[in-house]
Amino acid sequence: MKTFFCFLMLLGCISSSAQQTDQLPNGEWQLTSIELKIPSAERLMLTVSGSQVSGTLYRDGNRIAVSGNVEHGNIRLVFKDGDEENIYVGTISNGTMSGTYTATGKDQKSSGEWNARRAATDKPAQPRTVDFRPTEFHRTLSADVPPVMRIWPGDTVRTSSVDAGGQDEKSVQRVAGGNPLTGPFYVEGAMPGDVLAITIKHLRINRDWAESDSGLVSRALTIDYAAANKQKWDTTRWHLDAENQVATLENAPASLKGFSLPLHPMLGCVGVAPGPYSAPLSTQDSGDLGGNMDFSGISERSTLYLQVNQPGGLLYVGDAHARQGDGELNGNALETSMDIEFTVAVEREKSIDSPRVENADYVMTMGLAGSLDSAFREATSAMAKWLQADYKLSASEAAIVLGTSMEYNISEVADRNVGVVAKIRKSMLSALIPAK
Amino acid sequence: MKTFFCFLMLLGCISSSAQQTDQLPNGEWQLTSIELKIPSAERLMLTVSGSQVSGTLYRDGNRIAVSGNVEHGNIRLVFKDGDEENIYVGTISNGTMSGTYTATGKDQKSSGEWNARRAATDKPAQPRTVDFRPTEFHRTLSADVPPVMRIWPGDTVRTSSVDAGGQDEKSVQRVAGGNPLTGPFYVEGAMPGDVLAITIKHLRINRDWAESDSGLVSRALTIDYAAANKQKWDTTRWHLDAENQVATLENAPASLKGFSLPLHPMLGCVGVAPGPYSAPLSTQDSGDLGGNMDFSGISERSTLYLQVNQPGGLLYVGDAHARQGDGELNGNALETSMDIEFTVAVEREKSIDSPRVENADYVMTMGLAGSLDSAFREATSAMAKWLQADYKLSASEAAIVLGTSMEYNISEVADRNVGVVAKIRKSMLSALIPAK
Amino acid sequence: MKTFFCFLMLLGCISSSAQQTDQLPNGEWQLTSIELKIPSAERLMLTVSGSQVSGTLYRDGNRIAVSGNVEHGNIRLVFKDGDEENIYVGTISNGTMSGTYTATGKDQKSSGEWNARRAATDKPAQPRTVDFRPTEFHRTLSADVPPVMRIWPGDTVRTSSVDAGGQDEKSVQRVAGGNPLTGPFYVEGAMPGDVLAITIKHLRINRDWAESDSGLVSRALTIDYAAANKQKWDTTRWHLDAENQVATLENAPASLKGFSLPLHPMLGCVGVAPGPYSAPLSTQDSGDLGGNMDFSGISERSTLYLQVNQPGGLLYVGDAHARQGDGELNGNALETSMDIEFTVAVEREKSIDSPRVENADYVMTMGLAGSLDSAFREATSAMAKWLQADYKLSASEAAIVLGTSMEYNISEVADRNVGVVAKIRKSMLSALIPAK
Amino acid sequence: MKTFFCFLMLLGCISSSAQQTDQLPNGEWQLTSIELKIPSAERLMLTVSGSQVSGTLYRDGNRIAVSGNVEHGNIRLVFKDGDEENIYVGTISNGTMSGTYTATGKDQKSSGEWNARRAATDKPAQPRTVDFRPTEFHRTLSADVPPVMRIWPGDTVRTSSVDAGGQDEKSVQRVAGGNPLTGPFYVEGAMPGDVLAITIKHLRINRDWAESDSGLVSRALTIDYAAANKQKWDTTRWHLDAENQVATLENAPASLKGFSLPLHPMLGCVGVAPGPYSAPLSTQDSGDLGGNMDFSGISERSTLYLQVNQPGGLLYVGDAHARQGDGELNGNALETSMDIEFTVAVEREKSIDSPRVENADYVMTMGLAGSLDSAFREATSAMAKWLQADYKLSASEAAIVLGTSMEYNISEVADRNVGVVAKIRKSMLSALIPAK
Repeated sequence: MKTFFCFLMLLGCISSSAQQTDQLPNGEWQLTSIELKIPSAERLMLTVSGSQVSGTLYRDGNRIAVSGNVEHGNIRLVFKDGDEENIYVGTISNGTMSGTYTATGKDQKSSGEWNARRAATDKPAQPRTVDFRPTEFHRTLSADVPPVMRIWPGDTVRTSSVDAGGQDEKSVQRVAGGNPLTGPFYVEGAMPGDVLAITIKHLRINRDWAESDSGLVSRALTIDYAAANKQKWDTTRWHLDAENQVATLENAPASLKGFSLPLHPMLGCVGVAPGPYSAPLSTQDSGDLGGNMDFSGISERSTLYLQVNQPGGLLYVGDAHARQGDGELNGNALETSMDIEFTVAVEREKSIDSPRVENADYVMTMGLAGSLDSAFREATSAMAKWLQADYKLSASEAAIVLGTSMEYNISEVADRNVGVVAKIRKSMLSALIPAK
Repeated sequence: MKTFFCFLMLLGCISSSAQQTDQLPNGEWQLTSIELKIPSAERLMLTVSGSQVSGTLYRDGNRIAVSGNVEHGNIRLVFKDGDEENIYVGTISNGTMSGTYTATGKDQKSSGEWNARRAATDKPAQPRTVDFRPTEFHRTLSADVPPVMRIWPGDTVRTSSVDAGGQDEKSVQRVAGGNPLTGPFYVEGAMPGDVLAITIKHLRINRDWAESDSGLVSRALTIDYAAANKQKWDTTRWHLDAENQVATLENAPASLKGFSLPLHPMLGCVGVAPGPYSAPLSTQDSGDLGGNMDFSGISERSTLYLQVNQPGGLLYVGDAHARQGDGELNGNALETSMDIEFTVAVEREKSIDSPRVENADYVMTMGLAGSLDSAFREATSAMAKWLQADYKLSASEAAIVLGTSMEYNISEVADRNVGVVAKIRKSMLSALIPAK
Repeated sequence: MKTFFCFLMLLGCISSSAQQTDQLPNGEWQLTSIELKIPSAERLMLTVSGSQVSGTLYRDGNRIAVSGNVEHGNIRLVFKDGDEENIYVGTISNGTMSGTYTATGKDQKSSGEWNARRAATDKPAQPRTVDFRPTEFHRTLSADVPPVMRIWPGDTVRTSSVDAGGQDEKSVQRVAGGNPLTGPFYVEGAMPGDVLAITIKHLRINRDWAESDSGLVSRALTIDYAAANKQKWDTTRWHLDAENQVATLENAPASLKGFSLPLHPMLGCVGVAPGPYSAPLSTQDSGDLGGNMDFSGISERSTLYLQVNQPGGLLYVGDAHARQGDGELNGNALETSMDIEFTVAVEREKSIDSPRVENADYVMTMGLAGSLDSAFREATSAMAKWLQADYKLSASEAAIVLGTSMEYNISEVADRNVGVVAKIRKSMLSALIPAK
Repeated sequence: MKTFFCFLMLLGCISSSAQQTDQLPNGEWQLTSIELKIPSAERLMLTVSGSQVSGTLYRDGNRIAVSGNVEHGNIRLVFKDGDEENIYVGTISNGTMSGTYTATGKDQKSSGEWNARRAATDKPAQPRTVDFRPTEFHRTLSADVPPVMRIWPGDTVRTSSVDAGGQDEKSVQRVAGGNPLTGPFYVEGAMPGDVLAITIKHLRINRDWAESDSGLVSRALTIDYAAANKQKWDTTRWHLDAENQVATLENAPASLKGFSLPLHPMLGCVGVAPGPYSAPLSTQDSGDLGGNMDFSGISERSTLYLQVNQPGGLLYVGDAHARQGDGELNGNALETSMDIEFTVAVEREKSIDSPRVENADYVMTMGLAGSLDSAFREATSAMAKWLQADYKLSASEAAIVLGTSMEYNISEVADRNVGVVAKIRKSMLSALIPAK
């Protein structure tokens, strides 16, 4: 968070100086380098002094010093990335830059085109609350979908999602099923290598029914149980009672007549677009960029942290559940449409291994992998790293905290990736000394 | 539970009749059949009418009808186990029986010796509270160790355990480390195929220190984390403050100066002896017979259910922890000696797949296996079976309850078996209709 | 195979009849139903008698009887899919049909548009050998890429692939790395629910170098080994000697001076496009549609069987390896460009769970999953199903064959999915009686 | 191997000197230290010069320098084990020593008794061939069973084993089933920290039948396959034809009438006793000490390497299979009795992580663990360590060999531990330079 504020101050200074010398490339840029048709965007901070240019490029989690010169609308930037000497030459015109580059390393040489545009600077004085009624829904997390809206950190968005099967609050089928999502939202200032923090302010059912299933997914069964109990995959329909905040089975069998579930609305899918070298991710899948995590802790008053891979982050939300048991053992939870209100923040230049979640009581790390054993390793190691970084603990000190205080959730086992959540009560950490 | 009471009534009738005709084999017997030197014990209920004998043998979870006759101290019993015709012949003398048997099946024939002794009938009118100060400790769950004490269902035992390293409440090294346990306790009336219920009434620290470690076990680490953070396995010593019920690090590094842990005493090991065909189990291992489960939920006011494999169950307890984080990530928890008070009950003729735990809030099933994925399957399927049996639910109905209401703990990943605990809040089940 | 031939005969009859009455919808059609913008294609066989139409729709592995009528260019088709009554109405014009449909089930109703075009009938009299020089390469298996070529079953294609990093036989960087593939090839007659058989006739290196790496992937390491041996991920460059068919390290360290590897060219990626409801698959990933399987057995004179999900299959090939150890433990194998010659066949209306491979010696099934344990289950069960189907074995009989004769390969552990190959020598099966 | 020979030479010198001064403790000793009733044995080499004693203790894989003095039958030995100062005092009498010891470390102090006896020196001039007809069989690997025979490295033992169910070559039931083994054999000179090499010289069936099963074990099945194909666990009986070396089903169903299996005799169980702090291991289980590995490669002309944990190693053999498919998918292989001829060697002071196997074509490492993923990690990392040690390769160089040349077997998935075998053809290693 410190980094974040100090950067904003720096940004302030640069901006004011840039206003004085409009033609000079002072300030923050989105630099896009295009190699073999694939564009990679990075944050570039430049300061001009006479014809000399100095600055910083944020690449792959590192700040790289940039030097160069600018004259008569021509710019030349030079920096070293590992053993690779990079030379960018081009021209400035109307507040954008473009040109060609070469990157020459010990063993190989590459080249391509580049362009740059100024980071947006029209941040509203006050955070806004904006409404967005979705008309299209998306079944992949993709960087190729035009953003539905540009928002600033601090802004609040009020929107809604259709259910996992594509039906909206009026039970109208709006899109094919498979977790169609609302978005993407472009967050100004979010660049690859930053972290996007999404806080769910309100999450409320907006219709009176949900659907689920009556079988147990394969990963939940022993061979003996599976052989003895053939799973029947009938749709179960639940009545949602908003007033009492409970769900009950429609057409309940005698044995489940009184079975009543407290509602606990949550978002099954929150994710950002993948980086330029990655394929779009199905919204039935999950990974470092979030997606279909199906974790019941992604609910009202929780904050989800995701690594940004594209300018603006490109945030998608949906797949709301009125309630879900841990593991999402029926393959579906109580799938329904939902009204969603969220706000975003950006933590600049921060690296997290996998999604993190925070609420009033807990800090949490998610492991998303092809087996519980792998997901467990990822969640646990991510928590160790988090504590080491945030409280300047040695590996042994972090180990002591984890060994005495860790708790776990198994969020879901219904999809290609399973999820394990490692969590520590904030009260256990209250005596530790935050870094800096 | 119904089964249990009805049997006691039956037992009552038989007993009173047996008192009248002392020489006749009326009543409940422990039948031991010895094949190839291996003795297997089973419950045999007999009723004599004239020279005719009828009864029931409880074998492998089934009740098998027995018929036969008795005359002049000679007895002959016949029953069919699957396709195997069993004939037991022998003599009665001084309240015991013995002889030889043959079992003839379609493809094979076996034979051996047998003997039987009357089930104990001297149950105290009132449950007793007995004290036991251990002088020896055991590092395997074994049927070969003579019981330290015979107790009846309902009795309460007050005893103590040394810590996992073998030190007692006075910090005296009593035995080599590796989870040395107190016991075994012989529970009258517990026979193979029954379930032993152990309720922990009190569990209290009895010294002011505990030991743990400063590394994370291999199963908790990603390869990247392990390569970047070499684990240091130093012993950490904790001060236990009984008055405030907290633990603090002795010689705490600056960063953990104020780190204080609420105590939560638990038993890392509770187990029974294995069956006659199984090897003794190391107390560092776990399985269907319990053992080193390291589940923090096995604490005061919880009840653990274990399948009985030997007459008397042969119950061992120990490896107490003043506190343990989920996963037991340091390999050791806060290992210490403990005062233990527990009571036992026997649920006759009941089959459970794996250990169960119950407390005021939850019903829980444990999966203990070589990977989290396998343990998860076992815990989940065991819960489905439990609900199907106890609430007469179909597989689909059980699936609906699990899918909406399941929670999980990862109890430990420090030993050969890992543990996953599936749990459902009793409040979620309150509207269901218990079977019969 | 029987199924295949009998269908061709049927097709023959229909075709000849269709030639006589050109305007009538006799024959084989590609029916495309569009629901909520998503088109699903299926094979539809129609026979007209007067104004009556009868036929068969192949959907989800089942043949569904279709009836209807046609008059004055208007057509109406009716069929039942489970409990859903489907009604398709539309018009015929210039050899294509189009219209709207409704599907009415017990609980729900859907509708959409449809169109149909005749299956191609211009099969060449003799199989052809065609050359294709790729100019573009693709980093996803996608149905959205226009086919580069239409081929018929029996045709042979001679083409080439760039290496996994995007360099061609002249060491020219043609495309960004990440397994860029050649294709897609459209195979006439291949429809969803069919199986595409790809036989590699020749696979030959076409340059004198390959690249690999010097580290071991995380899945191959124990925590202890990883902590003691930091992996160094340097590129290793290999000289490929076509004459002697060996590879040797360029700049070999002293200890590996004489280390020489027999070449064994193989294709790391062979795959088809996913179905309409699935996202494109990264060519670094694998699944039922093949993809980056990295199995050294996909080499000259082997046949790979893949389930078809799109009309024409849409076949992609590439990621050739001059040699690969099992597991592909370095993340990369000996990556190089390659000349490829393959032929295709179509087995109509056949369902396989996962990719199959066959060569002169073995039948093989592949398990591709997020853990070796899951991949092992998939490969083994797929083999049991294969034997049951092809030799009319009961489950027990198949179990006996597997238990006595199974062998396994671990194809790769370097990607998101790992691969386990179950294989049985054909000689072990020689005494079994093929079904029909 | 070098180490081995140089030690023998050293031993030679010491022995001859010891003959001159019989009362002095020159030479090799088995030192047994007893702490808290648990005896640990170690090799102690002593040289006396005047009243000064110097020597080496081999403990936990390290050679520790020992100094001390001896006078009038009193001996005092001092050495440092980490930060622990060890003082052993005692007396010598009749070629044995005994006394008490203290070990004082920074934080803790322990003490106990010790005794020592001379290593046997009556090695026969020529290796012998000895016959052993077993009369008892053992269902655990245990250090508590008196050895049946003492043999020297180089000796050949001709013996036999009953089948896994306890029946011998005459179909006589000799013992209860569950892999009863022949042994233990005490190998002179083998001490904890050494490696025992067992070479199977002959392995021949000695009766005409074997038994197996008709189901597939749970680990081999997907949930879908298990639900669709209930496994039937009938015993299958096979006729063994020694002349033609094939097995055929007795009472074969029509579909398996001609199904004939080439025999490939192997030992399912070869193991040594566990160390003093470990529980006996069931012969249905496996681990670092071998046991029920069920690897078809443990067959004629192969050598198995096991870490020694007890003086003499205490070697057990049995559970022979006339043939087994990889995975041992039926739970049983073709279980039969067998004539066994083996020889042993001892590699002194060598540490291996898990069992190794070698034959004419391959070097192999075994991973034995609770999941295939874990077993795979163990086998692969063990091979990397082997190559690094034997060919003085860096981690990267070993990685290159593994990545290009590794092959794998899945030995078995039928027991608590599964087995993965990593193997490299010796021909691939022929160009590498053996260490020293």
